[in-house]
Amino acid sequence: MKIPPVKGTRDFYPPQMAVHNFINDGWKRASIRNGFEEYDGPIFEYLKMYQIKSGDEIVDQLFNFKDRGDRHLAIRPEITPTLARMVNQQINALSKPIKWFSVPRLCRAERPQKGRLREFYQWNIDIIGIDDVLADAEIIFTTIDYLRQLGLKPADVKAKISSRKLLAALLCNIGIPEEKLDSLYPLLDKKAKLPADTFEELLKENVCDGAKVKTILDLMSVDSVEKISDIINLNQEAQAALDEIKHLFDLLAVMDIGEYCVFDMSIVRGLAYYTGVVFEVHDMVGDLRAIAGGGRYDNLLRDFGGPAISATGMGMGDCVLEILLRQRGLLKDGQLQTRKVEFFVAYVNDELLKNVLEITARLRQADISTSFSYKAQNLKKQLKQAAALNAEKCIILGDELEQGQIVIKDMSTGEQSCVDMGEFFKNL
Amino acid sequence: MKIPPVKGTRDFYPPQMAVHNFINDGWKRASIRNGFEEYDGPIFEYLKMYQIKSGDEIVDQLFNFKDRGDRHLAIRPEITPTLARMVNQQINALSKPIKWFSVPRLCRAERPQKGRLREFYQWNIDIIGIDDVLADAEIIFTTIDYLRQLGLKPADVKAKISSRKLLAALLCNIGIPEEKLDSLYPLLDKKAKLPADTFEELLKENVCDGAKVKTILDLMSVDSVEKISDIINLNQEAQAALDEIKHLFDLLAVMDIGEYCVFDMSIVRGLAYYTGVVFEVHDMVGDLRAIAGGGRYDNLLRDFGGPAISATGMGMGDCVLEILLRQRGLLKDGQLQTRKVEFFVAYVNDELLKNVLEITARLRQADISTSFSYKAQNLKKQLKQAAALNAEKCIILGDELEQGQIVIKDMSTGEQSCVDMGEFFKNL
Repeated sequence: MKIPPVKGTRDFYPPQMAVHNFINDGWKRASIRNGFEEYDGPIFEYLKMYQIKSGDEIVDQLFNFKDRGDRHLAIRPEITPTLARMVNQQINALSKPIKWFSVPRLCRAERPQKGRLREFYQWNIDIIGIDDVLADAEIIFTTIDYLRQLGLKPADVKAKISSRKLLAALLCNIGIPEEKLDSLYPLLDKKAKLPADTFEELLKENVCDGAKVKTILDLMSVDSVEKISDIINLNQEAQAALDEIKHLFDLLAVMDIGEYCVFDMSIVRGLAYYTGVVFEVHDMVGDLRAIAGGGRYDNLLRDFGGPAISATGMGMGDCVLEILLRQRGLLKDGQLQTRKVEFFVAYVNDELLKNVLEITARLRQADISTSFSYKAQNLKKQLKQAAALNAEKCIILGDELEQGQIVIKDMSTGEQSCVDMGEFFKNL
Repeated sequence: MKIPPVKGTRDFYPPQMAVHNFINDGWKRASIRNGFEEYDGPIFEYLKMYQIKSGDEIVDQLFNFKDRGDRHLAIRPEITPTLARMVNQQINALSKPIKWFSVPRLCRAERPQKGRLREFYQWNIDIIGIDDVLADAEIIFTTIDYLRQLGLKPADVKAKISSRKLLAALLCNIGIPEEKLDSLYPLLDKKAKLPADTFEELLKENVCDGAKVKTILDLMSVDSVEKISDIINLNQEAQAALDEIKHLFDLLAVMDIGEYCVFDMSIVRGLAYYTGVVFEVHDMVGDLRAIAGGGRYDNLLRDFGGPAISATGMGMGDCVLEILLRQRGLLKDGQLQTRKVEFFVAYVNDELLKNVLEITARLRQADISTSFSYKAQNLKKQLKQAAALNAEKCIILGDELEQGQIVIKDMSTGEQSCVDMGEFFKNL
């Protein structure tokens, strides 16, 4: 009986697994050098945990099910709710600031599209307990630090940065009632995805006042912090929010990633839960979805039944990233090895198999990757097999073995030498 | 709103994550040095895939659900069906032998017990395409190679090895009809878990013939290959199976893990799908569940709609293993670091924060793990924080910075030296 894989999932054959590990290991290394500790949570949680953060609409986008005790559970579509739950559970025992990262496997019951699958990995970094843009700067730095190390230049990718606090202050400043903001964010967030006239129409429906619509449209097109005060007279709150974002850009410049960062008022992020700096990393050449996104979310831990503690974080999925790296030639098929073979032990007849096994076992016990052929095919075939496995060196067992000698062949230079086996193991 | 984790799942806070990584990295290293390539599959598959291998009873033990297209899916309880599906899909493109490993996250809708959770990790290694006990020997070697490297001795753990082929031949040899074997295996597999008289009673019900029951009981207690021929006169098939298992033990001795291996007829493995060598690794001191189990399964790929290709493999879960390592003192709380800090950058006043960020960013860009305090608390406090983070070295920024000098303090020796910052970065 032949059964296919489920649509929107991936099979990681060794070559694909090597790509996955390349991305994953890079995420981990960047996290570690930036001072983050790794955590993880369960692959499923109570369904209601996701409703707290994202409302009831999320239920349809989750793989949800009941266990035998009739508990309503869901495969995690994101890890932030788990993070909030875990931090709240041990809030007093954990020393602050909490700087954690994770590379969770996540699932969403969506229709698969380019760069969006039903199962994917997402790098998450979060700093909890620091109510200062310095933490936001570190989150953005860590994100760029990773992308830069991959070989992506400021011409390839940019962190587009704005602030929910600033946007809220500006909207209030021009007379939008505060209680209207939460419904306005998802619309403003869609600006880049909608035709200009559709966006304007929806905005008119929502805001009603033509002058205000005009000011909002002007504000949303601003690409430099300095230009905001050309559009409206800033009140005190708006000025404070503006100063904060200016300070953020100063910090990013000091950290030498200024060229990767731009101010962009149109970055809003759909979710209600952001409270301060928000950002998305975008491909500057193609038309891919956002590579990464994040921001400050100071209320989430409280919403999950914990104390009011400020937090800021970032998420980066693996699907869009892989497409981008391939487009830029930074990831090529066959570039990554699927197997490590330091020694390949070849032998000239089946009677030497015992010696092959003995030597292989000793090398492996010394943590040296070693392979051999299950059959003593002719030596040429074995050496071909060794080459196909990218073996660094071959040990050839032949008649010399009677004198305790083995032949070692360097597979890159082709050089061969005969050495004493005892010496060989002594020098490992 | 406070929501608990789901029963039977684990939260991996950084200390637990460090343990998880310790186990996981060891599995990966052992796999790589033994010549295996990594693969992985989706976290969920079509439910019916699991029914093929394990029958309809499995459905209750799975977290299963329907997607929006009304497809019946399940979170994977094991990865072998995925392996069979993936190998069959690319059977012609994959060069043989296929030596693959994976460390999948798996879920089973069971009642949580000691060493058995509803979500766990399992190391899997498989060799496909080699119909020779040499492949079984490599699977057992790799398993022991890992456990030995952890510090476990032959007195701690043993691979108990038997053969389905031998068992089948012996049972047929004493007159059990071949069609009865599949129903007999699950019962024989329970021998160690049942009181002796209960086992005997069930066996009588199943076999009926008292003399045969007696012979089976004698056979099941055999702990050495040599003793089998004392119990029954071996026919040709049984003799061939016996020779094969003897040859396996010869190979294991050559590979220098003979002391870790014992012959044990009572190892049957419940599943119908095993066809040759079967083994379980058991703790010799405590009363834990099996640490690992595996064997040859030559029909599975065919059952999954592919060609008849022989295969052999092993699975080892993380839960029992962790309990064992803790019991033996091979894994201690606090033994593993959760964070790496090569440099901690301290500063004497907030005006130097810019310099802290600049130096931190440069070090991190050079892939050097670096941390700093978000506030310029007094130096003593910062050094205490650095010590708490296990920092290897501190860079202290003070008045010397005006002359381009920084102080470097070795945190293990306490030694301090003043160096030129330009020189410092040049020598990194």
